[in-house]
Amino acid sequence: MSTSEFSIVFAVFPGVTQLDFTGPHQVLSRLPGARLCLAGTCGDTVESEDGLRFAKVMKLADIECCDVLCVPGGPGTTDAALDQVFIAEIRRLAGTARYVTSVCTGSLILAAAGLLRGRDAACHWAWRELLTPFGARPVSARVVRDGNIITGGGVTAGIDFALSVAQEVAGPTVAQAIQLALEYAPEPPFNAGGPETAPAEVRALVERRLAASREKRQRDVALAAARLEEKT
Amino acid sequence: MSTSEFSIVFAVFPGVTQLDFTGPHQVLSRLPGARLCLAGTCGDTVESEDGLRFAKVMKLADIECCDVLCVPGGPGTTDAALDQVFIAEIRRLAGTARYVTSVCTGSLILAAAGLLRGRDAACHWAWRELLTPFGARPVSARVVRDGNIITGGGVTAGIDFALSVAQEVAGPTVAQAIQLALEYAPEPPFNAGGPETAPAEVRALVERRLAASREKRQRDVALAAARLEEKT
Repeated sequence: MSTSEFSIVFAVFPGVTQLDFTGPHQVLSRLPGARLCLAGTCGDTVESEDGLRFAKVMKLADIECCDVLCVPGGPGTTDAALDQVFIAEIRRLAGTARYVTSVCTGSLILAAAGLLRGRDAACHWAWRELLTPFGARPVSARVVRDGNIITGGGVTAGIDFALSVAQEVAGPTVAQAIQLALEYAPEPPFNAGGPETAPAEVRALVERRLAASREKRQRDVALAAARLEEKT
Repeated sequence: MSTSEFSIVFAVFPGVTQLDFTGPHQVLSRLPGARLCLAGTCGDTVESEDGLRFAKVMKLADIECCDVLCVPGGPGTTDAALDQVFIAEIRRLAGTARYVTSVCTGSLILAAAGLLRGRDAACHWAWRELLTPFGARPVSARVVRDGNIITGGGVTAGIDFALSVAQEVAGPTVAQAIQLALEYAPEPPFNAGGPETAPAEVRALVERRLAASREKRQRDVALAAARLEEKT
């Protein structure tokens, strides 16, 4: 790899939440020398939670190394955490990366790969406690840094996360130029973006919907944590 | 179309800025009954500005009607505005839609289709004045509504825009539930998201970069505006 290039790999899987990585991809593609790719266990086409189909996805096994490894989350996260090929490739690539990163429930995948033991990490607010079985320390924040591991909170936190990575890699002027070019001066129409500020009935509505997948996710995480335990 | 379905068409083209529509797609996919698709002049695969490849894109000509038409922007915008098939399909579909919408420089495409004459519209801050030759009134705002036309500002404004559309279509509780599920409580690391707040050297850096495409875009817009004039 040329020293002027900066390679960024987004590790994707079926049922990924696309905004977890499309936000960061848009931001980080504007870093000088950035070379970005999507990669998964099988390559080819990966379909997101909301039905977007991403073509020409690479195979993780075909990527030798990278500067930034970024793992998004989404409804497919715990299935991905149980895909042993995927997890082995995440562990291997993380070993080559300057920065090991995630957005949303992607931190559960880093955790399942054994990369967050004793580390602070962000996660989507509703799933944060699932980091604990892997020995990670869940932190309620938009962007969390612990050593070379940078994790973002739920979905839209990926944009704040990516601007932080841009600042780290290329300095504040470049990061601010990216922010200005993307007109990132957010004005959410409500103050409902976190469980502390959302109206009670809104939070109840979201929690009712998430309840449907909670039991499976807890079971998946217990299994992934047991596998990690055996391995180490 | 079943009355319980709500169809949303994102009109895409080569060189689109993907976050202009991936943000809204993520938000609007969570509306009850939402059926979303990407569609372009030729269908098949469309590559975004930053190299993401979106597969199984439909042909605009194959779509009879929709509830929401949403046109994103990006470096490919003025080429799309000069693609007469694309513009004719935008004009036709807009005639079937309850809401005609855009994000970023996508409003230049609505304008080129003759849909913004005498209307207020948002656009990316750096390109806003290009609305004028089409008889539209550029407005400096994150989300602008004029009748059934809802336009968003630059790139990341698409998320604020989409939550406004969600509120309009499904009410404030549903919109806030989507905001909470996407953890949209933004914390930009800098106050550099608009030309008024960005440091002077940051603004100068971005304007220097944009200068490279300004002349071509102005020429393209003049041609598209002349064509619109002839047509009407």
